[in-house]
Amino acid sequence: MKTVDVLLIHAHVLAMDEPLNQYEDGAVAVAGDSIVAVGPSAELEAQFEAAETIDCAGKVLMPGLVNAHTHVPMTLLRGLADDLRLDVWLMGYMMPVEREFVSPEFVRLGTQLACAEMIRNGITSFADMYYFEEDVAKATAEAGMRAVCSQTVLKFPSPDAGSYEESLALAREFIQRWKGHPLIVPSVAPHAPYTCTAEILAATAALAVEFDVPLHTHISETAQEVENMRHEQGMPVVPYVKKQGLLEAKVLAAHCVHIDEGEMRTLLHAGAGVAHNPSSNLKLASGIAPVPRMLETGLNVGIGTDGPASNNDLDMFEEMRLAAFVAKGGSGDPTALPAVTAVLMATRMGAQAMHIGDITGSLEVGKRADLILVDISPLHNAPRFRRDPHGAYAQLVYAAKSTDVSDLMVNGRWLMREHQLLTLSEPELLQAGQEYAGRIDTFLIQREQSLLSKLIAIGGASEEESFEIQIKAPIPERDTLVRALNQPEIKIVRNRHYREYDTYFHFPEPETSLLRFREDHFVDEKGNVTNVRSRLTLLGTHEHQLEQVVLSRVRYFAPATQSLRFYREYFRPDGEVEVEKDRLRYLVLFHETEFFINIDQVNRPELGCFVEIKTRTWSRKDARRKAELAKELMAYLGANVEQTTLDDYLDMVK
Amino acid sequence: MKTVDVLLIHAHVLAMDEPLNQYEDGAVAVAGDSIVAVGPSAELEAQFEAAETIDCAGKVLMPGLVNAHTHVPMTLLRGLADDLRLDVWLMGYMMPVEREFVSPEFVRLGTQLACAEMIRNGITSFADMYYFEEDVAKATAEAGMRAVCSQTVLKFPSPDAGSYEESLALAREFIQRWKGHPLIVPSVAPHAPYTCTAEILAATAALAVEFDVPLHTHISETAQEVENMRHEQGMPVVPYVKKQGLLEAKVLAAHCVHIDEGEMRTLLHAGAGVAHNPSSNLKLASGIAPVPRMLETGLNVGIGTDGPASNNDLDMFEEMRLAAFVAKGGSGDPTALPAVTAVLMATRMGAQAMHIGDITGSLEVGKRADLILVDISPLHNAPRFRRDPHGAYAQLVYAAKSTDVSDLMVNGRWLMREHQLLTLSEPELLQAGQEYAGRIDTFLIQREQSLLSKLIAIGGASEEESFEIQIKAPIPERDTLVRALNQPEIKIVRNRHYREYDTYFHFPEPETSLLRFREDHFVDEKGNVTNVRSRLTLLGTHEHQLEQVVLSRVRYFAPATQSLRFYREYFRPDGEVEVEKDRLRYLVLFHETEFFINIDQVNRPELGCFVEIKTRTWSRKDARRKAELAKELMAYLGANVEQTTLDDYLDMVK
Repeated sequence: MKTVDVLLIHAHVLAMDEPLNQYEDGAVAVAGDSIVAVGPSAELEAQFEAAETIDCAGKVLMPGLVNAHTHVPMTLLRGLADDLRLDVWLMGYMMPVEREFVSPEFVRLGTQLACAEMIRNGITSFADMYYFEEDVAKATAEAGMRAVCSQTVLKFPSPDAGSYEESLALAREFIQRWKGHPLIVPSVAPHAPYTCTAEILAATAALAVEFDVPLHTHISETAQEVENMRHEQGMPVVPYVKKQGLLEAKVLAAHCVHIDEGEMRTLLHAGAGVAHNPSSNLKLASGIAPVPRMLETGLNVGIGTDGPASNNDLDMFEEMRLAAFVAKGGSGDPTALPAVTAVLMATRMGAQAMHIGDITGSLEVGKRADLILVDISPLHNAPRFRRDPHGAYAQLVYAAKSTDVSDLMVNGRWLMREHQLLTLSEPELLQAGQEYAGRIDTFLIQREQSLLSKLIAIGGASEEESFEIQIKAPIPERDTLVRALNQPEIKIVRNRHYREYDTYFHFPEPETSLLRFREDHFVDEKGNVTNVRSRLTLLGTHEHQLEQVVLSRVRYFAPATQSLRFYREYFRPDGEVEVEKDRLRYLVLFHETEFFINIDQVNRPELGCFVEIKTRTWSRKDARRKAELAKELMAYLGANVEQTTLDDYLDMVK
Repeated sequence: MKTVDVLLIHAHVLAMDEPLNQYEDGAVAVAGDSIVAVGPSAELEAQFEAAETIDCAGKVLMPGLVNAHTHVPMTLLRGLADDLRLDVWLMGYMMPVEREFVSPEFVRLGTQLACAEMIRNGITSFADMYYFEEDVAKATAEAGMRAVCSQTVLKFPSPDAGSYEESLALAREFIQRWKGHPLIVPSVAPHAPYTCTAEILAATAALAVEFDVPLHTHISETAQEVENMRHEQGMPVVPYVKKQGLLEAKVLAAHCVHIDEGEMRTLLHAGAGVAHNPSSNLKLASGIAPVPRMLETGLNVGIGTDGPASNNDLDMFEEMRLAAFVAKGGSGDPTALPAVTAVLMATRMGAQAMHIGDITGSLEVGKRADLILVDISPLHNAPRFRRDPHGAYAQLVYAAKSTDVSDLMVNGRWLMREHQLLTLSEPELLQAGQEYAGRIDTFLIQREQSLLSKLIAIGGASEEESFEIQIKAPIPERDTLVRALNQPEIKIVRNRHYREYDTYFHFPEPETSLLRFREDHFVDEKGNVTNVRSRLTLLGTHEHQLEQVVLSRVRYFAPATQSLRFYREYFRPDGEVEVEKDRLRYLVLFHETEFFINIDQVNRPELGCFVEIKTRTWSRKDARRKAELAKELMAYLGANVEQTTLDDYLDMVK
């Protein structure tokens, strides 16, 4: 009789090994951190004496689930913002909050919350990608879970680094410190091809190769990403990253929603693994990954939850089911991705995709003891049919719930027994998490109380405070006025012609500001549009009025890098007003003073033609002088000064 | 102070009423079977004195979920057969098992199991469609749940009726008996347009109108159904059922995966409700229903689990999430079907689709007290943000689990308190269910041990036992032999020309039988195919051999109503052999005895030309006589009798 630490008997064992061995009355023997035997209960009971023998009748004993792609600290942002477009969600909520809140403390707490949830859901290993990954690793190791922890590198400043060189240095130190840890495999994560430069891709690959650690990245998550890559580089994403040397490393490629068969073969030949994220891909409407084709190609495809802010949970039972459902629904073939394949992806194949398949992912002698017990006695799992040996997998995938997981062991250590967590204190974590959520809530609520802070949150709006001198008058038509510019007192410095499309967002009381989204379409002499520029402007109220000319305003500008639709969803205005005009814009010198003269034809609404004279100054005294000059210029141009107005076109619409 | 029975206080109340009222510290007062007040806790506490006051802190209080389409007794068939094509699943497994097992007892037990599961999952009302619906209604009422119970009518004999007239009569009696019941709304269910005649559709609609009860049916579940309808009736499914008068009734149309906007408007004008079944539609690869368009049209779209044999559970939390996910993924728009809409569909809108929206589906004064408490304290629901008032819905849809439902009340009566069922005994149900499963397992295992019983299971194969006399000889070409038929001793009774495509399925040892799928393509004189006939034949071994002529065989035939692919998946052969030949078949009289003469050219594999003479008899003595005559006829036709063979073409291939 050999002695072992733990002998689990009378379970329905699903080994998830190569021959897919099942033992209806099965057993697993664990010694130290490893599995020393898997087989029928009677055999193992005859062979081993155990410090602890556990009767697992009525339970499935299987390898722990492998979550092949996630961002665990984002448990703290779960439910912060949902049902939004990816860009609004990311640029409008996730990134501003991350900039403000993500710290080592945030990351540790978020990781602990995630570990507690994952242990409850039967997950023993996961592949993470976030900032301060050192702290993810620490919290994970303390909780006793296994993980590939990937330090993010990207071209923008991030919560943990002011530049990519800094985060690359962080990654190197992190890998050096953690390499060889029994639970943590350190790794580097160039975030995505579109958030990294070619140089970053090459440098992170070299780092991963130097230390022989996995490289974790996002590949082809959206059709837009592929389209941009084709447009900019003339090739899809996988060939591009290959060109940068990325595939020299042991790659874990998350998503791969929009890759073709050539790219699948390239990934296969590079030994890369794929992490499929069905919930996230559906929720963010990224598309349906061609998983059945990837599997046919021979790729190792694991399943991931993605971050809990875009899912919104860390439930691999849900992901297994969805992986099977989506493959069937997407292909029109109900035999696609059968239950056994979904379980395989969520266990052994996921571990292989994460490049830790040698130590975990199946119940095999010599592998680490990463295993779970699933209670199949609850009603929703009943009844049990034995006709089809694959029925056991179908029960797990199509009927079982994550809450059926009763016990979980990683590396030979129990992390949950009979639904009780052994390494984490849920009440404390919940309280600390809620305190963070309260602070984030307050931050966002304050931000949303003011258009200005919402604007600042998404693009660092630049503030411009000055006196603006403006005078405007209707004119019968534009040609006369254009000809009037050819007078000796006026010197034309430069002129431009463009069509201006303005969308004004207005907001419910008590908000007094207006937000203007302006697109300028520059027109050349042949009438062709040569360039388009967008700008977002927060328009304050008219604060001062000097005679009938001078206004003082507070304005904030932001370059409009996102679409009108983005801003509409982000700012949620009460309503909108559109103004379109054709503008001839002249910068002139009149009495050695610079003025802009806009000769406009307002087409939408049809307000007719106007001449507008504008200038700016920081000096109130100078403002008076310029106001006088502007009126003089107006008269000089032959416009009717009696008809001047301070109204914006927008005011005329109302 | 008014007196009430139950006062629920300090809950986060989601009323799901028209203004979507939420009360963060909310309360609901229940008197008898109804809701008498909904509002802030402080207000209700000041207003009411209650026999029982329950502190619901940390819980969401909302209307019970409404499962708008299911077949509850099929809990007993859950996990019986998965990852199969719809036809294989239905014709090969569900229907044969239903024919054998479905009885009032089966239906009662299956319903009880389903009620237990649904109560645990927070479902208070459901729309069912099955056989012996009287027993579904009884078991449901005993369990205390609310349901629209629909007695199935279809053109085939069913487990509860030998003919449609019988099931229609059953439906009438059932409706008469149950109309006005406080929990059960009786209803009639013409199963689907393709399983009913026009007459059945008209008759069931008339019945539903006569008693003013809902009519429950399946509409446009698969693209095939719509294609067939267009082919046969020249219109899609909704116009067709409208033509039969079906839409005169209060229709609940399940699935509607493949309906166009015109059909949506037709359903809207008829006041019909739709039940969307996202899990089932994905799992069976039926397609993605155009739910966002239906909602824009103004249709009441509820959410259903469909039967637990095609899902495989009765989890409305899963369905809510999937409804949101699939709408986003299917449309490419992540803002499609936001969480609040999913919850609405799973509550008030589902009740409206089932035509019981006046009494349930929201927490409103005067409606029945059908409500649940959802514990949001588990970790996977944390943290909680208050910024977006719709966050509470997002938490329910994207993070919460059905196991978070702690308490459930229907019609003012508690059916579950603190996760304990009050009206059903799970251990007893589980045991009884497993006994049924054991019998079904045995039935299927026995069936699958023999090809014959598998064949019988799907089509009532007819057995043919007889002596078959067969003699075959190679010939250089066919024309000479055709001319040789014009001899005085031979009288041609009739002749046919066809191309015969045979697929032989062979099976692993010890199975000795072969299964042949044969397609005969009849060819007219111009060489055009005029008709195609398919037949499935189980070929026994050659049992007797008389001289070199007579064989005795056991054969079983079934008309091959399904596709080759169906049989391939159903029988799962070890391998296949294909034989194709061009056959000239003559029925002749030779010495006043009937013989079939086949003059074959075997094209695949290229075996050349053969003449085959066949006849049958039930008499061994007559067999000898005919064998002699056959040999004589062979010589008379000029074929080389020395080269005769007993081999099938199949044997020559091997």
